[in-house]
Order: sequence, then structure tokens, then C-alpha cells
Amino acid sequence: MKISEAGGERAIIKLIRDQFGSPAEGDLALGIGDDAALIRSGDMFLIVTTDMLLENTHFRMELIDGYQLGWKSAAVNISDVAAMGGTPTYSFVSIGLPDIEIGVVESIYEGIRDVSAKYGSVLAGGDTVASAAGIVINVVQLGKVSPDMVLRRDCAKPGDAILVTNTIGDSRAGLELLLRFGLSEARRASESCVRSHLQPEPRVSEAQAAAGTGKVNSMMDLSDGLASDLQKLCIASGVGAGIHSKQLPVSSDMSIAAARLDLDPTRLATAGGEDYELLLTCRPKSAPQIIEAIAATGSSACVIGEITQERDVVLIMPDGAVEPIGESWEHF
Amino acid sequence: MKISEAGGERAIIKLIRDQFGSPAEGDLALGIGDDAALIRSGDMFLIVTTDMLLENTHFRMELIDGYQLGWKSAAVNISDVAAMGGTPTYSFVSIGLPDIEIGVVESIYEGIRDVSAKYGSVLAGGDTVASAAGIVINVVQLGKVSPDMVLRRDCAKPGDAILVTNTIGDSRAGLELLLRFGLSEARRASESCVRSHLQPEPRVSEAQAAAGTGKVNSMMDLSDGLASDLQKLCIASGVGAGIHSKQLPVSSDMSIAAARLDLDPTRLATAGGEDYELLLTCRPKSAPQIIEAIAATGSSACVIGEITQERDVVLIMPDGAVEPIGESWEHF
Repeated sequence: MKISEAGGERAIIKLIRDQFGSPAEGDLALGIGDDAALIRSGDMFLIVTTDMLLENTHFRMELIDGYQLGWKSAAVNISDVAAMGGTPTYSFVSIGLPDIEIGVVESIYEGIRDVSAKYGSVLAGGDTVASAAGIVINVVQLGKVSPDMVLRRDCAKPGDAILVTNTIGDSRAGLELLLRFGLSEARRASESCVRSHLQPEPRVSEAQAAAGTGKVNSMMDLSDGLASDLQKLCIASGVGAGIHSKQLPVSSDMSIAAARLDLDPTRLATAGGEDYELLLTCRPKSAPQIIEAIAATGSSACVIGEITQERDVVLIMPDGAVEPIGESWEHF
Repeated sequence: MKISEAGGERAIIKLIRDQFGSPAEGDLALGIGDDAALIRSGDMFLIVTTDMLLENTHFRMELIDGYQLGWKSAAVNISDVAAMGGTPTYSFVSIGLPDIEIGVVESIYEGIRDVSAKYGSVLAGGDTVASAAGIVINVVQLGKVSPDMVLRRDCAKPGDAILVTNTIGDSRAGLELLLRFGLSEARRASESCVRSHLQPEPRVSEAQAAAGTGKVNSMMDLSDGLASDLQKLCIASGVGAGIHSKQLPVSSDMSIAAARLDLDPTRLATAGGEDYELLLTCRPKSAPQIIEAIAATGSSACVIGEITQERDVVLIMPDGAVEPIGESWEHF
């Protein structure tokens, strides 16, 4: 039976869980299943996360330049460290390279260097191999967090308010513009949406500010889209959620891009991925304090719904109608 | 200028070094350039190493099964931890997969599980992505070592004896048999050489036994072949080396395979890669103690030459003639 017939990525993750169990024992405080693993290291937790990006699966070289590719490869891993409330420390980058221009390779590493420096991480090693089949980048990001600051996705409680940082859907709108119009025309249409997609900013200080209030119950970053990621958080926590469509934070740039693309901005916000914003939950009365703490970092945050006892995840429309939240872009 | 015109992998490594310097500061005790990085973690060092394996660059699915592929992917990283004198702890595996049989994926993870369990490591996370272009496996292996046990490649001293563990060249002979005859016939010709190539055993206890004597000056594992790896050790240490061809430890299985392949066993031993045996140096008078310590683990070790002040790396033939050591298989 092929992977596709067996259920795709889910079948593989199930297979891994079945074979390796949940090995949170010894120094391993949190294993497979969250944004990152946590390993006890003295009086701190070591955070470890890894992501693989493949040409033509995750990116196309005619739609991204080397600098942005390097930036994004490192940024998405830094975002996973941020999502645990952690501080990025060191990264290790493995690259598989076809015989491309060496200037492109240099740009990839410049992008890695700049985003690492911006968020306090240092490249400490890696591997370089020849690839016959496109560029492959695997980044491993280490970070650290004190046990009293660590945030996980499996601790949301019924009644919690659900918050996201800044705006969502911009990245997906940027991708749609790129796919429809190509790089130059897409940038003319919306520089900011295209930048959200190609050069995302991990929310490190926002996450630490939120964690620092001591009032966040659960947190993760938005990589696969609000609908998909919120369902993961709910499954991990054994809860459900209701999201109010009119409370979704949508930028005017994204709305304009959506109109040009003839796409629904609400769908872009819920089902679009790669926002790398934070999704977090807290008791409703603590929301203002968390929003204020995040505002002090220069970002915004807002309440978009609440955690429920019933385990389904729904979108509540302005007219009060309740819809199941589309799981991912592909399910449209 | 293409990578190939700029000097291949060396040009890329130079570019990375130029851009990132040698960031051995703060908690980073050893950065880019050794088998693994060392990060201070309480009173221990955290060891981090990563290797990427690409289908058709590093392996072909008609010549290796899923189990062996999983085993080898993890084993080569465990070997890097061993080469620092360390103990493997946790691994993180990113896999890019085309739509292959799910049974093959299961076998890959079984191989990872078995070699990890054998050498005391636990799979703690990873990433799974769809690949349009063959299987990609990136393993990150963590380990730990106390600062007084850590061994590096840059501390060889003129006059040191050079030792290797067990026999070398078996893996390359196995690869040549596989390429020439295919899997079934190659296994009939030499099960042991084929196994050395497809399912190598990292020398964890051997490395710790050697490190435990306190007499090893420098150590690394043999991944690219004795000639290439010894040159790396010599460059890192600012020394040269002379290897006595008749002292090279060659198995009878490899000699028989070499005869069948019409290849020179000495060349297989010096220029063949993927041995994953240990290469180490010590004062000559300490060699017997180290050999004895390694023997207690069930492996053997022997002296193959000595470190010299002159910076070239040479092969000394039985008749006393001195040849430059061929750098890699490709330079034949």
C-alpha cells in the first residue's frame, strides 16, 4: 500500500508514534508531538526543533530568492522555539545542492545569518551534500527556556480565550499572488503579503512577553493555518473551539489582495498557512494583560474565540450560523 | 559561477566559514569543523551533529532495503558522537518521502529504532514532508560528554602513533560489489563487506574505552576514507602523517572481494570511505594501553603510521618508496 492510500502524512506520524511510543522519560520532558522537544539540561530545558524544506514541494526558485530562502528556512525553526516560550541559541543547517550558481548559495547563507543574528541565534554546524534533485534545506534549531516559562499546546482549558498575534492570511495571499502573477507582478500587487510569505518574522519577543505574564495556558505557532493548527491544539488538549469570523485580524493589504484574487479573506485567514504568528489561550480575564505585554514588543494581539468543552472546532459567522472550520487549503 | 567551477563542496565550506567565522564563544566550545559541535551544558558538553542522505547521491533503493537505510542514517550520526568520545542521547529525524510503499517507511523507522536502541539513543522528534524527488533523510544526533573525556581532531602532535579500529576498506569493497553485481550476487560474494557498507556499526564503546585511558591526543571517525579523513585531521592539527601500507588492517573477506573485483586492497583501505571506524593518535608508548582498552570492548585496533612535522600525508610502501596518499576514490 502506498503512503497516499494509507492516509498520507498522518499515517506516517501514526506509524512513528506506534513504533516509538511517547518517550517522555529520563531527561526528555516532551517528545514527539509539540512544536519542539524539551530536554532537561541542568535547571533549564533544551529546546530542539527541526524542519525540512524541499524545492518544488515547499518553494520554487523562480518565486523566491536565495536570501529569502535562507531567511525563511531558519525563521520557521526559530518560530517553533518561540512557540515554546524559548530563546533561540544555536542552529545546524544541512543543505543538498544541485550545481547552481555559487552566488545563490552565498545568498542563502546570508539570509540564514541575518535572521539568526536578528533573533540571537548562532550557526554552529551542518552538512553540505550534492543533490541531483533540487535544493534541500534542513535546519535544526536549538533554544532554551526555564521550566516555569515553557508553554505547550496541550494545556488549553474550556472557557479559555483564544488569541492570535498581528494579522493572519497575509502569507497565503502572498503565495496566491506569486502563483497567479509571478514574483514581480505579485510584489507590485502587495509587497507586504509577498514579504509575509517569503520572509516571515518569528515572534520571539512576543512569545516571551506573553509567557512572562504567567497567564498563558497553551501556545503554538501558526504554520499550517489557523484551522489546522487550532485543531491540533484542541486535540492535544482534549477540547474544542469556536472562532468568531468577524474577530479574525485581517490586514487591509490582505483584503485588497483577496479582492484582486477573488478569494474570501476569511478563508485565507483560517485555512491559509505559514503565518508564523502565535496562537495562544488564557483565562478570559487575563487576555487584556497578555495583549498589553505583546503590545510592548511592537506587535498586536486580539481575542478571536474561545475554547469549548465540546470537541469540535467551529467558525461562528456574523449571522450566528456555525460552520465546521475548513481544515486546510486543500479541503476547500 | 557554478558550484562545480568554484571548487565544489570546498568552496561552499569556505564560504560558510568566511560568513560565520569560527563562533567558538559563549556556550559554544567547538563550532563548525569537527565531527560535531560542542555546547556547554552545566558541567557537561552537549554534542550536536547532523548528516543528510539523499537518494541517488548517497544510496540507491535497489541496493539497500528500508531497514538498512534507516539503520545507516542513524548510525553515521551516532558515529560522529562516538568520535568525540561521547554518549548518544536523542535523535531527530527529518524525512522527505515520495509516494512509496508505507511498508518501506515502516522499515526505515525500524532500522532507526534498532540502531538507536542498541547504542542508547532515543528518537525524540523530527519532520515528515512529501518529496517529489526521491527519499531525503536528515538525522540530528545529540550526545553528551564530560569535558575531560572529549576528543577532537585538531590535537594530533608530531611523533604521535596513528591507530585505527578493526579493518578498513570493507565498506568500499561492499559498495563496489553492489555496483558491479547487484544486491543478491554481491551478498553471495561477501556478506560481510556488503553488511559493512549497508549496516555499519558505530564504535561508541570503543571510543569511550579509548578516551577513558586519558592517553588519546586526537580522534575522528572514518567517513570519507582514511586518506581524506587523515588529511583533515592533519590540516586541523597543523601536522602531516606517514602511513605504512603493510600495517593497514585489511580483512580476508575484503582481500577476497578485492581479488574478485580486480581492485587493489591497499587502495580500497586508504581511499574507500564509509568505514565508520575510529582514527586516533597518541604518544607511541601509550598505544598498547589504548589497544588493550579497545580489545576489552570486543574490537581490535592497530598502529598504522605516525604523525610528522612535515605537513604532507604519505603512504610508505613495503619497499620503502613514499607515495602521496590518494585523496579520495575519485582521484584514482
